[in-house]
Amino acid sequence: MMVRRAACAVLVVVAMMSASLRAEAQGKSTDASIRAALAMQEAAWNKGDMDTFVTSYKNSPDILFIGSKINKGYAAMVARYRASYPTREAMGTLTFSEVEVQPLGPGFATATGKFHLKRTAAGGGDAGGSWMLVFEKTPQGWKVVRDVTMAAKP
Amino acid sequence: MMVRRAACAVLVVVAMMSASLRAEAQGKSTDASIRAALAMQEAAWNKGDMDTFVTSYKNSPDILFIGSKINKGYAAMVARYRASYPTREAMGTLTFSEVEVQPLGPGFATATGKFHLKRTAAGGGDAGGSWMLVFEKTPQGWKVVRDVTMAAKP
Repeated sequence: MMVRRAACAVLVVVAMMSASLRAEAQGKSTDASIRAALAMQEAAWNKGDMDTFVTSYKNSPDILFIGSKINKGYAAMVARYRASYPTREAMGTLTFSEVEVQPLGPGFATATGKFHLKRTAAGGGDAGGSWMLVFEKTPQGWKVVRDVTMAAKP
Repeated sequence: MMVRRAACAVLVVVAMMSASLRAEAQGKSTDASIRAALAMQEAAWNKGDMDTFVTSYKNSPDILFIGSKINKGYAAMVARYRASYPTREAMGTLTFSEVEVQPLGPGFATATGKFHLKRTAAGGGDAGGSWMLVFEKTPQGWKVVRDVTMAAKP
């Protein structure tokens, strides 16, 4: 009887430890995966590689890009990026700072941070501000499904 | 044989219809539930009932309130609301417009819209802007877990 109880207690402790370790591993992996997605965005942008940059967004008609107004859908988002940043000079050099990842629940997380765009006067001059992104874990990895970008007051 | 096939086809169609109706019902329920939560916010605010207003947020240390800077946690959010709107006159009359609900996946959704605050000059004058909220379906109903509020340019 005592042996059976002890065995049961050990099993319960092992089950609890394994759940906790699994949660911790998942938490770390979400944070690391989203930071990697953001680093990929920065790197692609700074190579002038818009094709790769836009793959950080989910290819869905439901994604939202919210700035001074709301734009809906992947196709409109890609078109908007291409129109706003038509040349390498207009893209400038993008840097993110104060990046934080905040898990929401299974398959979703937010990230917050600031951006700074260093550009020549001909390219449009420097710009910057802050953002909050909602990420979804898709079969293709963590992708942005909501982007709220707030330009800093000049 | 033919009868069995027909019975099977009927079962498949019924199963598909039921899944579709269930999804539609869930979609409508999410939309309706979140609109009801927003209507409750407006109504509580316009009665000067800050205690009820703040219950639209999830009581969690992880919620984020993002304006000109990032505030974290329910307690800080409540304190900030009370400090920013200390009197009935400072609260004024709140109206939401252009409200849209966008489901994210099981248990999460975003909502976007505009706010307008009508106030006397002594209360701080009119204010307005736009917002995106992330809602989580909790045992207590749909609650706000991320609030990005952008003041309109004056």
